[in-house]
Amino acid sequence: MALTPVFDPPYYAVIFTTTQTEALDGYAETAERMEDLAKQQPGYLGIDSARSGVGITVSYWRTIDDIQAWKRNVEHTEAREQGRKQWYASYTLRVAKVEYNYAFGMP
Amino acid sequence: MALTPVFDPPYYAVIFTTTQTEALDGYAETAERMEDLAKQQPGYLGIDSARSGVGITVSYWRTIDDIQAWKRNVEHTEAREQGRKQWYASYTLRVAKVEYNYAFGMP
Repeated sequence: MALTPVFDPPYYAVIFTTTQTEALDGYAETAERMEDLAKQQPGYLGIDSARSGVGITVSYWRTIDDIQAWKRNVEHTEAREQGRKQWYASYTLRVAKVEYNYAFGMP
Repeated sequence: MALTPVFDPPYYAVIFTTTQTEALDGYAETAERMEDLAKQQPGYLGIDSARSGVGITVSYWRTIDDIQAWKRNVEHTEAREQGRKQWYASYTLRVAKVEYNYAFGMP
């Protein structure tokens, strides 16, 4: 699996951390669709995800405006509503400005 | 499993994303020790980790100075050297300032 490469700062990270319910019908399809859709948005730079106990998804964006525009996407808004109703027991979301970064062993 | 709660911004996130080798002797013990040691450092706020394919660990700190001081910790420096020599095929590390955050279903 490939990691999202680093970029010249500043750029933005959305750190989305979750715990799930057991009612995961439809979750995997929606998560995959949201990832595909995010990749088509202006300012999208990359996404990394892992889940073991908790889930962590970090997506990277050029500007805060790009993040806000993606938040307003209708299909994304519906997916978030379904997430709160059904799939997520809890979550935190943080928007953070990357000030510096470095990489090891990346292509 | 409990998520790290949100805090009043600004504060800082260290987003550490990894792929591993197959030479994981000693990794689990060191990872656990580093988490215990991080918790004792000034400015430490919390940590969330998940691994599935890639690993993502996000630790939260009050200031950049707190992050830099933890980076200079001798035992932590030795662990990072071992990580590059043995456990990690690749990694990225980003230091980012949390500008806003929100939570759902948190205690």
